[in-house]
Amino acid sequence: MTIPTKMSAMVTMGHGDLDQMVWHEDWPVPEPAAGEVLIRVGACGLNNTDVNTRSGWYSKAVNEATTGGAFAEVNDEDPTWGGAPVAFPRIQGADVCGEIVAVGSGIDASRIGERVITDNWLRDADDPLNMDKAGYFGSERNGGFAAYTTIPAVNAIAIQSDMSDAELATFSCSYSTAEGMLARANVSADDTVLVTGASGGVGGALVQLAKLRGARVVAMASEAKHDEVAQLGPDVLLPRSPDNLRVALGDERITVVADIVGGPYWGKLIDVLERGGRYTCSGAIAGPMVELDLRTFYLRDLTFTGSTIIPPEVMQNLVRYIESDAIKPALAATYPLQELREAQVAFIAKKHSGNIVVVP
Amino acid sequence: MTIPTKMSAMVTMGHGDLDQMVWHEDWPVPEPAAGEVLIRVGACGLNNTDVNTRSGWYSKAVNEATTGGAFAEVNDEDPTWGGAPVAFPRIQGADVCGEIVAVGSGIDASRIGERVITDNWLRDADDPLNMDKAGYFGSERNGGFAAYTTIPAVNAIAIQSDMSDAELATFSCSYSTAEGMLARANVSADDTVLVTGASGGVGGALVQLAKLRGARVVAMASEAKHDEVAQLGPDVLLPRSPDNLRVALGDERITVVADIVGGPYWGKLIDVLERGGRYTCSGAIAGPMVELDLRTFYLRDLTFTGSTIIPPEVMQNLVRYIESDAIKPALAATYPLQELREAQVAFIAKKHSGNIVVVP
Repeated sequence: MTIPTKMSAMVTMGHGDLDQMVWHEDWPVPEPAAGEVLIRVGACGLNNTDVNTRSGWYSKAVNEATTGGAFAEVNDEDPTWGGAPVAFPRIQGADVCGEIVAVGSGIDASRIGERVITDNWLRDADDPLNMDKAGYFGSERNGGFAAYTTIPAVNAIAIQSDMSDAELATFSCSYSTAEGMLARANVSADDTVLVTGASGGVGGALVQLAKLRGARVVAMASEAKHDEVAQLGPDVLLPRSPDNLRVALGDERITVVADIVGGPYWGKLIDVLERGGRYTCSGAIAGPMVELDLRTFYLRDLTFTGSTIIPPEVMQNLVRYIESDAIKPALAATYPLQELREAQVAFIAKKHSGNIVVVP
Repeated sequence: MTIPTKMSAMVTMGHGDLDQMVWHEDWPVPEPAAGEVLIRVGACGLNNTDVNTRSGWYSKAVNEATTGGAFAEVNDEDPTWGGAPVAFPRIQGADVCGEIVAVGSGIDASRIGERVITDNWLRDADDPLNMDKAGYFGSERNGGFAAYTTIPAVNAIAIQSDMSDAELATFSCSYSTAEGMLARANVSADDTVLVTGASGGVGGALVQLAKLRGARVVAMASEAKHDEVAQLGPDVLLPRSPDNLRVALGDERITVVADIVGGPYWGKLIDVLERGGRYTCSGAIAGPMVELDLRTFYLRDLTFTGSTIIPPEVMQNLVRYIESDAIKPALAATYPLQELREAQVAFIAKKHSGNIVVVP
């Protein structure tokens, strides 16, 4: 195929509101550098990290819940997940599904035509396990909110599936985040896992992936979404924030809390953990500042694991699950890329269940 | 030897101030039940847990630092480390060094005459690894603030040492607590460990035991005690709460924080942890309620381990360290048992360095 020199792209110009995302129809198509591939984007999923990076929520100067709006008090020095500044203009977007249409030097041309999804963790080629050298697709380099994108060849994972590009674009960030959390907490068939925000992308992934590990799953979500969350197979469904969580749980003995919500309800989650229980976290959309009672923590021998950078094998496992239909997509809505702002408004409103995707 | 029927004992009558500890000279000497031994107490060490249980600090109704005084708002339902009520009158005191003078049925009489220290974790005989069935010597059963005490034979650990009873009574609770913390955090020679409260019993133990594991150690203590803490061999000594901890640390890269202090300074400890770092905790004498930024926690892939109940092998390792002189006692002061109240006042004032012991 002939590759054009210009493309459409949604380009983020700086930290701030939705209007920082500017639509371009003549943005230059990137060229794959040595070791990279050029992907024609079929679909790209939306994630909290796009919103957090744009709004500057990761900055220590911010203490509020994720709203998607601009924060007045972002520090220029620490507005990204890794605490470093972002280079603008930046094309965000992490979860690409598409087709390899060109390769850089050193990459076998036989990969052209391959259908791929992205492993979003950009690891140092010579030091891949060094977490200090890791970057994220769409944050430390341009991502998928465009017609074309480049990525190191090792991050373009071949996939065989009957699912649509939009369905496949629901998985990478949220499912690898969820699988990383469960791996860090060493979840097994002996566990009962309490999942917060189970109607969201990561929450729904946690439900499915914890079930795949044989665990019992108690899912928390707003009651309006219980029918949809029930499709994911949790053993028990609870409202988003029962007044008395211990009573709401009945006889369930919670050995693991898997949380991406945080916020004012957080202490109640910790209080229901059994002795020796684990808390695993990869987000805090209801607010990052929580009050911890160190007595509960140490007297009950709890373990807390924060999870962000994911080991390389997680993505390989995920592809295996997708190809064997062990996990199913939760595609809430598809928007044209040009309507990414509207898509993010819907994403932030959290009235949907599952993942929202844009197509160029 | 002839065993008397009456003994002196300091008996705690209920939750409250120091005056809840009442001196008796005609308290009945306990008889060893089946599987137990009777120990003539040579010395018994003081620990925060005695103070916390008496004052009710473990209760969720209390949010302040440990002061040793009574708290007005203790709940009767959850005033102990394990969240259960205490049976009064109770003889507290955990760290006994003494001699076995009688045995209950099923225990070989050849143990009479053995010099022992106590493993304070009372494990269920049929289910020893079940943490929900564990109790603590001096809390769930009578302890060592008396001339005699009984304990399951498996908890009386034979020891060969040239140290005095008072010196040997400095180890059990604080060193097993410290070793349990370091084991939970998997501390190795690759680590640099930041130790808070390094002049205290557990803090000093953390310094010595982390050095034994080959780690680099940065010890924090009030400057008045730096000369004494230096004897324990830390690589770097810092004041108790530098305004800018990151600057005070210079080039040190902290991979583990080992903390029993908590309180208002806590967030600064977490902020200096490297990506992938670990926080391990077994106390919060400066206050249990701390503010956690979940972003720091998950974005840096941190692991927090609370440590209370200690695996059985920890105490065996500790005895090996003592017998080989790999660790040395930090005996701050010895008081007659009858002056336990005065000893606790000194203990709570934290002007000493090391451990305080009473002798019957």
